[in-house]
Amino acid sequence: MKVTVMGLGLMGTALAEALLRNGHETTVWNRSPAKAAPLVGKGAAQARTPAEAVAASDLVIVCLSVYANVQDVLDEAAGALAGRTVANLTNGTPRQARAMAERVAGHGADYLDGGIMAVPPMIGNPGALVLYSGSRRAFDAHRGTLEALAGARFLGGDAGLAPLYDLALLSAMYGMFGGYYHAMALVGTEKVTAEEFTPMVADWLTAMLAGLPGAARHIDGGDHATEVSSIANNAAGFPNLVDAARDQGIGTTLLEPIGELIDRAYAEGHGADALTRLVELIQNPRPE
Amino acid sequence: MKVTVMGLGLMGTALAEALLRNGHETTVWNRSPAKAAPLVGKGAAQARTPAEAVAASDLVIVCLSVYANVQDVLDEAAGALAGRTVANLTNGTPRQARAMAERVAGHGADYLDGGIMAVPPMIGNPGALVLYSGSRRAFDAHRGTLEALAGARFLGGDAGLAPLYDLALLSAMYGMFGGYYHAMALVGTEKVTAEEFTPMVADWLTAMLAGLPGAARHIDGGDHATEVSSIANNAAGFPNLVDAARDQGIGTTLLEPIGELIDRAYAEGHGADALTRLVELIQNPRPE
Ligand SMILES: NC(=O)c1ccc[n+]([C@@H]2O[C@H](COP(=O)([O-])OP(=O)(O)OC[C@H]3O[C@@H](n4cnc5c(N)ncnc54)[C@H](OP(=O)(O)O)[C@@H]3O)[C@@H](O)[C@H]2O)c1
Ligand SMILES: NC(=O)c1ccc[n+]([C@@H]2O[C@H](COP(=O)([O-])OP(=O)(O)OC[C@H]3O[C@@H](n4cnc5c(N)ncnc54)[C@H](OP(=O)(O)O)[C@@H]3O)[C@@H](O)[C@H]2O)c1
Repeated sequence: MKVTVMGLGLMGTALAEALLRNGHETTVWNRSPAKAAPLVGKGAAQARTPAEAVAASDLVIVCLSVYANVQDVLDEAAGALAGRTVANLTNGTPRQARAMAERVAGHGADYLDGGIMAVPPMIGNPGALVLYSGSRRAFDAHRGTLEALAGARFLGGDAGLAPLYDLALLSAMYGMFGGYYHAMALVGTEKVTAEEFTPMVADWLTAMLAGLPGAARHIDGGDHATEVSSIANNAAGFPNLVDAARDQGIGTTLLEPIGELIDRAYAEGHGADALTRLVELIQNPRPE
Repeated sequence: MKVTVMGLGLMGTALAEALLRNGHETTVWNRSPAKAAPLVGKGAAQARTPAEAVAASDLVIVCLSVYANVQDVLDEAAGALAGRTVANLTNGTPRQARAMAERVAGHGADYLDGGIMAVPPMIGNPGALVLYSGSRRAFDAHRGTLEALAGARFLGGDAGLAPLYDLALLSAMYGMFGGYYHAMALVGTEKVTAEEFTPMVADWLTAMLAGLPGAARHIDGGDHATEVSSIANNAAGFPNLVDAARDQGIGTTLLEPIGELIDRAYAEGHGADALTRLVELIQNPRPE
């Protein structure tokens, strides 16, 4: 299959390499043309302009920093878009994806939005996943090619769904990483190494992950009754985290908003509920 | 072995039940005496006062809400403490644990501080872990009994170590849960159920956990060079998370401090580094 990759940053380069490894006839384009050289060495054709890049293939994969870049580049190639499929794997918001779907449709092309749930070294390897939404027809037509990049999962016709899921997964990841960094900062004040502590964190978080299906039942059912660990218990214990951080001289900014949500849940009368009640508080933020 | 459990909340009750199941001669005490009834039905002896509870056993396990409660209760039993071992499994800070170790030693008792890395239903079952620090002699003498509760790991003679590790693990857990709750709040705005989304989050976080050993090498080595995902990449993409939360009408408080740390790292010239650089920023908070 003929495929174009526009954008040869860390991620775009990994995408183009996976396509080349799978024997696809790959055309590449990047704003700074020099980044194409290693890929040309591996058999890629280099397009000189966005329009040339789009004209080269039925499937045009775009992976730039932000949507504003995608808009600029596709506008330059507008005349060549009719009849193509644009698979935009740039990270953005549901609102941006919906607007881009309309814009691309206006140029007579099919649109897929994609959320890459992987870092570049995972591309083309087991465990990588790309979430897609938008044109089902385009997904079905190009699924085989897209699977050279990663497992491909189609979420629905609303182009905003892939970024919605993507950003939700990234939120969970940043939360976990933030918690891990805080943990490392804390034990580091007593000269505990990350090498020593990290396996313990990994085992502990793995054990805590096993509780998520139970949490999901609370969240969907709206019933947060618990016999295990209540908002009141957490409200009693959470200040220890903040106090210990202060005692050890490290920052508390990552802890504070969680403590504030727990306190708010307690103040609003949810002391007997499980922590899963916090989802509703996040959905109904207090006016600032 | 004779063992006393002081505090019969959710956790203390689970501890006493595990001891009884393992055939230990168990004495229990709780401020509100009625909570002892089910345990007495299972063979526990009920002490009427803290002093009676302490006098009944060589090993005295204490599990109350906060350290201030422990201090009150042990002060009441001070005359009976000499020669006993107090294993205090109440959640607290390293500073509180060190002070309690001194206080208890002043009464002629050995002191172990413990951090329970489990919820009550896990007590006595595989996967539960209690971290101990303080008197090595006391740990060695009572290890067999303590293992009826959970796997037992001794961290060192400084009583503050168990709470240090405990609070670090809890920080990581709250981070992960906070991230998960935000994710659920976000997808929930588009009627995606927790049941549908949670397995995806669990798989994704499991995949991201696999990266922690690599992160640990960055943190210990102080070398944060990356070819994968830099502070600059994250600074470019993070606003999408905040914008999407705003667009969907949900709160952004859990996201903001992570975004601020990323921006600060970028502003301080670490744009080419991996996110692991954030550990050093947490350890060197900006004056408020
Ligand atoms: N890296 C990851 O771990 C990862 C994981 C999942 C998703 N993603 C997403 O993948 C996308 C690309 O990330 P990346 O890691 O490849 O970033 P990157 O290495 O910084 O590359 C950015 C790319 O965007 C191009 N670009 C930036 N501004 C442009 C403009 N005004 N006009 C045209 N091209 C422009 C760059 O071209 P030049 O070379 O000319 O600067 C480069 O090709 C982002 O949306 C990111 O969120 C990345
Ligand atoms: N639940 C968990 O998932 C979990 C997990 C790990 C660690 N922990 C830790 O275990 C400890 C106990 O938690 P829990 O879940 O058992 O809490 P809980 O169900 O709220 O029980 C609190 C216990 O503390 C006693 N207490 C409170 N104030 C007291 C006072 N002024 N004087 C004497 N006793 C007092 C209560 O006695 P009354 O019955 O008379 O009120 C009760 O026995 C906490 O430090 C907690 O952080 C809990």
